[in-house]
Amino acid sequence: MVHYKLIYFNLRGRGELARLILHHQEVAFEDFRFEREEWTKYKTGTPFGQVPVLEVDGKPLAQSNAIARYLARQHGLAGQNEWEQSQADMYVDCIYDLISGTRPIIHESDKEKQKEILQKFLKETVNPHLEKLEQQLIKNGTGFLVGKSITWADLAYYSFFSPMTERFGDSVMDNSPHLKKLVEHVANIPQIKKYVETRPKTTL
Amino acid sequence: MVHYKLIYFNLRGRGELARLILHHQEVAFEDFRFEREEWTKYKTGTPFGQVPVLEVDGKPLAQSNAIARYLARQHGLAGQNEWEQSQADMYVDCIYDLISGTRPIIHESDKEKQKEILQKFLKETVNPHLEKLEQQLIKNGTGFLVGKSITWADLAYYSFFSPMTERFGDSVMDNSPHLKKLVEHVANIPQIKKYVETRPKTTL
Ligand SMILES: N[C@@H](CCC(=O)N[C@@H](CS)C(=O)NCC(=O)O)C(=O)O
Ligand SMILES: N[C@@H](CCC(=O)N[C@@H](CS)C(=O)NCC(=O)O)C(=O)O
Repeated sequence: MVHYKLIYFNLRGRGELARLILHHQEVAFEDFRFEREEWTKYKTGTPFGQVPVLEVDGKPLAQSNAIARYLARQHGLAGQNEWEQSQADMYVDCIYDLISGTRPIIHESDKEKQKEILQKFLKETVNPHLEKLEQQLIKNGTGFLVGKSITWADLAYYSFFSPMTERFGDSVMDNSPHLKKLVEHVANIPQIKKYVETRPKTTL
Repeated sequence: MVHYKLIYFNLRGRGELARLILHHQEVAFEDFRFEREEWTKYKTGTPFGQVPVLEVDGKPLAQSNAIARYLARQHGLAGQNEWEQSQADMYVDCIYDLISGTRPIIHESDKEKQKEILQKFLKETVNPHLEKLEQQLIKNGTGFLVGKSITWADLAYYSFFSPMTERFGDSVMDNSPHLKKLVEHVANIPQIKKYVETRPKTTL
């Protein structure tokens, strides 16, 4: 059995998708978390001075999506064929873009300005995306984003939209009943439920 | 034989990596380019209101990296095994981040301010990355980023750093002799050379 060590801040952030994949598939791994103050200790040892890093029997892999894709492929969550896998890749990259879009919101300390940026982000980026996404979910017709069963793309949407609604209220998905259902479905998967209940509580 | 239609602006931008992969492997495709003014005609027909989109026998795939990865896998440029493929994914995501980092530079119209942002970007983002990258290239020792032969990751670095040096001078890679050699190697591959000489001249 390989030894997985996932190295990341004690945050959800860019590390959580890999964790969700491993918990969903009930794969044992070392969930190595450190606090901000400790970062300088680890930075130079990483491939590009950033985390997450996944060590597979000591060999490092960087970049959150490369890590998550590797795990999804190794453990049967990547899609059933090359086309499905590419569709999953596409959705995961959409989430990558959405996460990047939240950075100006997180970095804004003025509460009023933060609200403004958030509203703009929802209106100009999230909502147009969700409109398109609903169409895709309806078209696929299985309750999942890709094919007939769950993939890491579904976990990625859960991982982004579940904290979004926690923070900004349920209305974020008001016009996206199919996505809402998908996010709820993932939240109720026993392995996910159990992990979420027991994971460290963190702000991000 | 499948019909590939790559839909993108008449720019290199986020469409060029897919084009380079196809030209490198001498795969026929429809290189569908449109001008900015025509964009509204195509936007609503895309999966997420953005391009590039690759149509494979009419079926659409969005997200530049998902497209490029699909093509790399179909045509033997993705890496020799799952680990190599993940390493290639990692490098391609690093380039994705670097491209995103150039957006504030491109969007700044004040020439002086633009220079400042560029210098900051080179110093804080590009140079630290290149330092790490040189170490990886030395460690791999084959002249390529991953394994013993060319992958789409090499094409991605070429695709980013070749215009960087065109625009900002050769000194960008002064401390990165191994990357410089790799970029030159790719530039001299006959299929790439031929495509680059004959492709539409565009600013981005
Ligand atoms: N594109 C990279 C981004 C990695 C990244 O930005 N990591 C941040 C934490 S989310 C980091 O390591 N920050 C500390 C630093 O750059 O020194 C990924 O998805 O893994
Ligand atoms: N993450 C996406 C980004 C796509 C993107 O930003 N596309 C731009 C052109 S590079 C676009 O379609 N802009 C027009 C618009 O958003 O209306 C990708 O890599 O494909």
